[in-house]
Amino acid sequence: MSIIKGFQQEIEAALSNLATEKEPTGLYAPMAYVLSLGGKRIRPALCMASCALFDNHRVPDALNPALGIEVFHNFTLLHDDIMDGSKMRRNNPTVHVKWNNNTAILSGDAMLIMAYQLIANAPFSVLNPVLDVFSKTALEVCEGQQLDMDFESRQNVTEDEYLEMIRLKTAVLLGASLKIGALIGGASMQTANLLYSFGSNIGISFQLQDDWLDVFGDSDAFGKAIGGDIACNKKTYLLISALNMLTGSSKQELNNWISKKDFDLHEKVAAVRNLYNEANVSAKAKAMMNYYHQNAIMQLDLINGAKDVKEELKEVAFSLMERTR
Amino acid sequence: MSIIKGFQQEIEAALSNLATEKEPTGLYAPMAYVLSLGGKRIRPALCMASCALFDNHRVPDALNPALGIEVFHNFTLLHDDIMDGSKMRRNNPTVHVKWNNNTAILSGDAMLIMAYQLIANAPFSVLNPVLDVFSKTALEVCEGQQLDMDFESRQNVTEDEYLEMIRLKTAVLLGASLKIGALIGGASMQTANLLYSFGSNIGISFQLQDDWLDVFGDSDAFGKAIGGDIACNKKTYLLISALNMLTGSSKQELNNWISKKDFDLHEKVAAVRNLYNEANVSAKAKAMMNYYHQNAIMQLDLINGAKDVKEELKEVAFSLMERTR
Repeated sequence: MSIIKGFQQEIEAALSNLATEKEPTGLYAPMAYVLSLGGKRIRPALCMASCALFDNHRVPDALNPALGIEVFHNFTLLHDDIMDGSKMRRNNPTVHVKWNNNTAILSGDAMLIMAYQLIANAPFSVLNPVLDVFSKTALEVCEGQQLDMDFESRQNVTEDEYLEMIRLKTAVLLGASLKIGALIGGASMQTANLLYSFGSNIGISFQLQDDWLDVFGDSDAFGKAIGGDIACNKKTYLLISALNMLTGSSKQELNNWISKKDFDLHEKVAAVRNLYNEANVSAKAKAMMNYYHQNAIMQLDLINGAKDVKEELKEVAFSLMERTR
Repeated sequence: MSIIKGFQQEIEAALSNLATEKEPTGLYAPMAYVLSLGGKRIRPALCMASCALFDNHRVPDALNPALGIEVFHNFTLLHDDIMDGSKMRRNNPTVHVKWNNNTAILSGDAMLIMAYQLIANAPFSVLNPVLDVFSKTALEVCEGQQLDMDFESRQNVTEDEYLEMIRLKTAVLLGASLKIGALIGGASMQTANLLYSFGSNIGISFQLQDDWLDVFGDSDAFGKAIGGDIACNKKTYLLISALNMLTGSSKQELNNWISKKDFDLHEKVAAVRNLYNEANVSAKAKAMMNYYHQNAIMQLDLINGAKDVKEELKEVAFSLMERTR
């Protein structure tokens, strides 16, 4: 995937200059810190690739909007980490731990504004549709985070509600990244919307895979303990499906594990995994992953664009399905 | 001020429809709540007035951007209230008290995005300069809030640093409101910048007046206890000036009052007011207020525009100087 890899490197280099040495440092140092923690830069790289699909010469026009998307994504991580009380992010302390809550709130706000400054560099001819899709998506990401928090205290979340939540919280930003790139590349709105669907379907598939790997993944390849979601009763697709599928004593047993305060971690993970197997939720999750994956590929196949770029976009989608961690 | 009053009413009506009955309610209800708490709506009204100064027919084009400015202003209040730990706002509990911190963070984020959605409705011909001034200003407001928080733990803040802080935190948004209105009204960039200066000078003068009223205002007209800033050692222009002017035992006495944990409120306010009088900081603050006020009027006088609107803008500036609360 040499084209997308090239974009990832370009993004990485440009990001490192965004927030450094600006005053007041109390505001900008946390921003530079967050942007320096790495990550795959997959969203901005897909934005540029989507532009290259239609017009290689316009790719430089996509750089700033692509950076805006990455800054926005990191803003959401920064504020989500406060809300979720997460202490670590990419093996480093989160901003609200390294500094404090106020710093994390205010630096995040400034990052959201800076994201818009970068997005507003989109070519004038597509500025309105680019701003439209970006703002709509940004609001949806907030809605997804709200639903995720709402679900924590709700007993009866349906699978459909969960899928809608991850669509909003995770998938639409992938879709928007590709759509914005396509618009800058000169694609029609109809074609840009196909790329949006490709991205959002990949996004949902990706999140379902994440849920699945936490329970059924290869623990060696995973590189971290399996069962983190089970340990903290995270309402994943698997847990929600199991709660909806199981009846009688099995459902009772699952609820007992959820409400237990003191437990042996290995024992709980093994017991819950057994209940998941009883409810056959692994197969169900895999079937849903495949459904969204195939949907994504179907959208991509409908698009006429540079063959080499299209091939790499397809590779991204497939590499996701082959993840073991 | 019938023209500006009319705009204020129009804004009030439009705001009440912005966030109501949207889902998820956990995200949008706090937004509707904040926007329902009132306030003078002076920024959006000035935005529309500034547009009317040049072209009355384009005022409807200024409505959405004006609403965006008001939504942005309320977003800053929402997040500032978390950071400052403020329990009440306009005689009602703040969002982080009525709901919780996470709700206040996320609803604020969504308000910032919604502000951009509204701003992006500016006429296409001026969309780029309007977005430029809005984003630049929004970042400056964050910088001002950061400086304000930095000052709390700093011993030696200069008057100039304080003036720069209130310029960023308070004044630039007034300037930007007027500039954006002028651009939508068809004014040249040069003229729009005069209105920006008018607004930011008024803003600084207004904040200095606020500082002054807390200590020397008419307590009956003020409607609340005088000395709130003194009670909590808020680094106002008066306190900073006094710390820089006083020497010897007087300076020692002021520092003693600042570090005292247990005190009688009336005694502290009276003692600090005496020290302020000794340092003659009331006269200094008044002189600075007048300087910025005159500066504002000077900028306005340079502008050719509808006479009735110009007269009302001047009245706004003068009414500020006559405030007793």
